[in-house]
Amino acid sequence: MNMMTIILDTKSKTPIYRQLYAYIKNEIQINNLIYNQKLPSKRKFSEYLGVSQNTIMTAYTQLMEEGYISSKEKKGFFVCKAENLEKFEFKNDKLNIAIPLKDETIDYNFSINTVEHNSFPFSILRKMYKEVIDEEDKTLLQISEVQGLEELRVSISAYLHDSRGVNCTANQIIISSGIEYLVQLIILLLKKNTVFGLENPGYEKSRYILEANLSNILPIQVDSEGMSLGDENINKANVLFLSPSHQFPTGGIMPINRRIQLINWANNAENRYIIEDDYDSEFKYSGKPIPSLQGLDTNNKVIYIGSFSKSLSPTIRISYMVLPKNLLKEYIEKLSFLVCSVPMIEQKVLHRYISEGYFERHLNKMRKIYRSKYEILVHCINELNRNIEIKGTDAGLNILLKINNGMTEEDLIKSALQNRVKVYGISTYYFDQSNCKKLPNILLGYASMSEYEIKEAIKCLDKAWFHNVS
Amino acid sequence: MNMMTIILDTKSKTPIYRQLYAYIKNEIQINNLIYNQKLPSKRKFSEYLGVSQNTIMTAYTQLMEEGYISSKEKKGFFVCKAENLEKFEFKNDKLNIAIPLKDETIDYNFSINTVEHNSFPFSILRKMYKEVIDEEDKTLLQISEVQGLEELRVSISAYLHDSRGVNCTANQIIISSGIEYLVQLIILLLKKNTVFGLENPGYEKSRYILEANLSNILPIQVDSEGMSLGDENINKANVLFLSPSHQFPTGGIMPINRRIQLINWANNAENRYIIEDDYDSEFKYSGKPIPSLQGLDTNNKVIYIGSFSKSLSPTIRISYMVLPKNLLKEYIEKLSFLVCSVPMIEQKVLHRYISEGYFERHLNKMRKIYRSKYEILVHCINELNRNIEIKGTDAGLNILLKINNGMTEEDLIKSALQNRVKVYGISTYYFDQSNCKKLPNILLGYASMSEYEIKEAIKCLDKAWFHNVS
Repeated sequence: MNMMTIILDTKSKTPIYRQLYAYIKNEIQINNLIYNQKLPSKRKFSEYLGVSQNTIMTAYTQLMEEGYISSKEKKGFFVCKAENLEKFEFKNDKLNIAIPLKDETIDYNFSINTVEHNSFPFSILRKMYKEVIDEEDKTLLQISEVQGLEELRVSISAYLHDSRGVNCTANQIIISSGIEYLVQLIILLLKKNTVFGLENPGYEKSRYILEANLSNILPIQVDSEGMSLGDENINKANVLFLSPSHQFPTGGIMPINRRIQLINWANNAENRYIIEDDYDSEFKYSGKPIPSLQGLDTNNKVIYIGSFSKSLSPTIRISYMVLPKNLLKEYIEKLSFLVCSVPMIEQKVLHRYISEGYFERHLNKMRKIYRSKYEILVHCINELNRNIEIKGTDAGLNILLKINNGMTEEDLIKSALQNRVKVYGISTYYFDQSNCKKLPNILLGYASMSEYEIKEAIKCLDKAWFHNVS
Repeated sequence: MNMMTIILDTKSKTPIYRQLYAYIKNEIQINNLIYNQKLPSKRKFSEYLGVSQNTIMTAYTQLMEEGYISSKEKKGFFVCKAENLEKFEFKNDKLNIAIPLKDETIDYNFSINTVEHNSFPFSILRKMYKEVIDEEDKTLLQISEVQGLEELRVSISAYLHDSRGVNCTANQIIISSGIEYLVQLIILLLKKNTVFGLENPGYEKSRYILEANLSNILPIQVDSEGMSLGDENINKANVLFLSPSHQFPTGGIMPINRRIQLINWANNAENRYIIEDDYDSEFKYSGKPIPSLQGLDTNNKVIYIGSFSKSLSPTIRISYMVLPKNLLKEYIEKLSFLVCSVPMIEQKVLHRYISEGYFERHLNKMRKIYRSKYEILVHCINELNRNIEIKGTDAGLNILLKINNGMTEEDLIKSALQNRVKVYGISTYYFDQSNCKKLPNILLGYASMSEYEIKEAIKCLDKAWFHNVS
């Protein structure tokens, strides 16, 4: 190596050793320094460059660690055999992947995955984030229990017991980041040969995560009272996945007799379980909420899952499941290496929010708001005096319509869009989608719409769906 | 039903309709009301009880929805056939599941899963949580892109490019909740017949999650330069999982030649990939960090994964992976139904923290702190002048010791505990643990210990390990 060619910039922000390292690395890459060539000794090099021997040594050490040079005892430093190394290029080209943007062609969106924005308790949460960081400092850096922060599990179990009739202790609760993640955990927990029976139609993401895991799944018909026990697939499956308190998307509520029959079905075989997805049971607008199926189970047969997606916001990503004690033992043996996926700060904030009574107040407030939106929506639809059937019960954050104007789901969605309203079909939620696209079913989510918007949107839908036939 | 027996408490907090509902439900459960028995009409009942017909109707509706009664057109309300319903009992017994508590028998804990507590940027984060909630209100309730908040992915990709030589755009990044969760996603992404080659010894949780998924895994030997390409299992596997920048737990750094050979290995077959776990590469105490393997890949062969567990705290639960563009396309086709598991607030706070330069400053600060702890630890050990080899390089938050005093791993851990110091063996990180328990290797994590504690702890270890043989 010709030491003459090295130019070190002492004014540069880049330390001398780095400049030296980069220079030599490049000399090796372009073969100005070849295999086994000897590098200058620390002493000679430092004298020549007028830098300390440490600087030289730091550069050499770096080159050694990256494998460009090696040192031979009492002999010095030599270039290693470097195979051809492709040049590093930073490509800044973006992939053409559509990221969903706000759609300018739509005035009203009956989206089913949103909540009311204006009533979200920002100020209370801001206060609590501050308090939690102020008061709990170092405990925020301690890894929470595997199943999630114990105090949060205690407040969730109390809430579930009082408001949902769920029969559990905090020890049976596992906190995670959304229903799909809980289902993933359940898949890992249950035996390999499990056959899952899913509501058809039903919540699509549970099906997707099961499919992504190549699990065995069977469709099970849904009627006005939820999952139908008459379906022959019932006895081919050993784990049933359902939402008895408010079936999605049909909105049916499962009556007590069928619930008891389900529990009996599960009791008939050791490996049978029921996964109860209680996804939006907080919102029932007349009478009191239907108690959970889990509360009827006395034989460790029901896995209860829920989340704060509807009751607070989908973006806080906190869900929970209640495991029967036998499965809990297996979970702890098999999966306790999985640290709870929810950040500690979130868990502590949510615990305060619930235990200080804010959550219950928020639910009561939102129940009123959603009820009045629901009533206005139903009122507007009835006032049209068209051939529209409103399916399901007065619960949850969306309603299912059967529009009898001869249009198919596709027609209804398309004509609504032409009138700047986005509505949703339910064929997505069926295993066998092709046939359902022909049905006239439309799902309207109203949580994030104002009462004014609901009124206007329904006018547009009347125009879209009945203008020609009226 | 004998209406006489109903006592309604108008002063009670419980609404009349609920008292009525509860009364009738109980009458049915204890068979005072039997199958097909007719209930009083709304009118009669309301007159008798002196409450409105609506109150009666609300109670009846509730009973109908739960399936206790049904209405027959123009006939009235009748009791349904209710199968025996087990009594609801709330059991408050706790399961005997040991939750790890602070161990009073230990003075010093060389834990490998902790970070320095005193330097955590609480005040900055508190400020940012407040800002984010103040300024971004409603965007906090919008579901982030599937892969995670785009602005956060942009700042992570910039950080990875500048500090780790990672060659990617924000589009290739997927944000999740810890390494295990990323590995779970990778398992779902890759083909069913994938055979994973894992470092032996290596990071145990990656192995556990693969085992929980019943994936095919093979151990691959590790030498002082990381994963050994001489191992015959190399060509039986098609996905290699390794930490080339700082092998865990042996601490080796993979030299450039072996990195290039690895890339070539991957290029030899279409279904071959490398998973690069860059878990604590932020902390290297001499020279500049070793650039990532991913930066050498020009053929979509490297999946790069990392997290903020070491650089910030394990409890913030934010990890990321960089997918090659071919796998990214598959991810979006196959798994884009999975909403990002990290809460929106965390994503926005972390984005600010990085993009406003705080993260880089924090890293520089921590690097100094950890380096000085590292140097004190090494100094104390050398000063003992015992037959102890310090393995690996000056990087990361733990060091590996080989203690040549005739003791096995078990002996070393036991005798340390008897002197109130907790140290960790590395047999846990081997596939074949039994043999390794006989080796004299000990892993010391020093991140959360003060310099004083390190000095004192080493004295205790000298006593524990060399008292008899000195």
